[in-house]
Amino acid sequence: MKPTIDVCLSPELISLYDLTDTIVVVTDVFRATSCMVAGLANGVDHIIPVMTVEECRELQKEGYWAAGERHALQIEGFELDNSPFSYMKQEAKGQKIAVTTTNGTRSIVLAKPTAEEILVASFSNITATANYLLSKTKNVLIVCAGWKGRPGLEDVLFAGALCQKLNDKFSHEEDSTYLALAAYDESKSDMLAYLQRASHLKRLKNLNGGDDIPFCLMEDQFNIVVELRGNALYVKD
Amino acid sequence: MKPTIDVCLSPELISLYDLTDTIVVVTDVFRATSCMVAGLANGVDHIIPVMTVEECRELQKEGYWAAGERHALQIEGFELDNSPFSYMKQEAKGQKIAVTTTNGTRSIVLAKPTAEEILVASFSNITATANYLLSKTKNVLIVCAGWKGRPGLEDVLFAGALCQKLNDKFSHEEDSTYLALAAYDESKSDMLAYLQRASHLKRLKNLNGGDDIPFCLMEDQFNIVVELRGNALYVKD
Repeated sequence: MKPTIDVCLSPELISLYDLTDTIVVVTDVFRATSCMVAGLANGVDHIIPVMTVEECRELQKEGYWAAGERHALQIEGFELDNSPFSYMKQEAKGQKIAVTTTNGTRSIVLAKPTAEEILVASFSNITATANYLLSKTKNVLIVCAGWKGRPGLEDVLFAGALCQKLNDKFSHEEDSTYLALAAYDESKSDMLAYLQRASHLKRLKNLNGGDDIPFCLMEDQFNIVVELRGNALYVKD
Repeated sequence: MKPTIDVCLSPELISLYDLTDTIVVVTDVFRATSCMVAGLANGVDHIIPVMTVEECRELQKEGYWAAGERHALQIEGFELDNSPFSYMKQEAKGQKIAVTTTNGTRSIVLAKPTAEEILVASFSNITATANYLLSKTKNVLIVCAGWKGRPGLEDVLFAGALCQKLNDKFSHEEDSTYLALAAYDESKSDMLAYLQRASHLKRLKNLNGGDDIPFCLMEDQFNIVVELRGNALYVKD
């Protein structure tokens, strides 16, 4: 029997899924997981995701770089903002980073007690992640970190894209997966244009300006898989 | 400023929305709300949705007809199953009905404390419901009852269809609404065929056979609006 692949559209729905023997893939395309993958692919040692600015500051005292933003501004005293390019700068190599990311951290915290394994992924390492999942025979649940508990369009597109790569070897049985596949199928010729059509949406108003957004949507820039070990994210050996 | 229309993809996400001054529209196309609309349009006096078979039996002692199914079978001693046609039979006119419907009842219970008003709707009264909402200037939240807390494709299609009817007079700002509109747009030329393509999905395996499913997807058979008063559903005056 084929393993299953499901899509969980919000961290608030994780408790509905049985994660036993299941590999959970957390995605937060704009921008937490895109930053994490970019940093780790460029030599960051490891990354600890936390919920609050305060937890970041505590880890900063232990030698971590602090990363994150509030209201689109870098936080005072933090080394990094939420641009994937800041994670890729030369000085970040070898650093340990603590990052505040509410939605991503919540997804990880909720999945951790029962999941077999937790990966973090984005478009930039989607094929590497897909190949790893294809090499296993485990069920997969893709968790869309979204925004304040609600589904985020870009995360749903990523989920659809990953499902499509796994489609031959996995079966999918849930309506959410079907929705994600359909949305990706509609958007895949130009995801940025698709999201820009939706940019009257409150949360996507700031899609223009800067290279971060196109970067976050670009597939396969990095050939790494990112996994949670303990409470930190590392490149998988 | 235009009122907003949002789509809540699962009852488990209702708590994320501010329902103050908001009209909540609950839908459970297969089949609870399709049954309710069909019954009330055909002379059923009122309908009380409850969670359990036991609550149904209690109300039966007070003169209610009991309705519902478990595992696709009519429940022993119940007058009605979950076919909209059973709600429309001649003898049902004037009856009071108690129905067990887990997902629909949960949606109503969770929305009730703060919503301005709660309606129940399905494709069969979609235009009547849309016209009522257009006559108001209230924000609207469509709640997809789904299945065991997870989004159901047919409910998402209904949400998209209702959003499209309100699009000129309402603004929508959430990604879920965008997803519902896109799914409806893709399916609208033949919703049954669209759902049948998805019928490898566990939950939709039994779409074939019988007239219930095509009936549940047929628009505008009834020109009524259904509202919650106290704990019961009535045709709105």
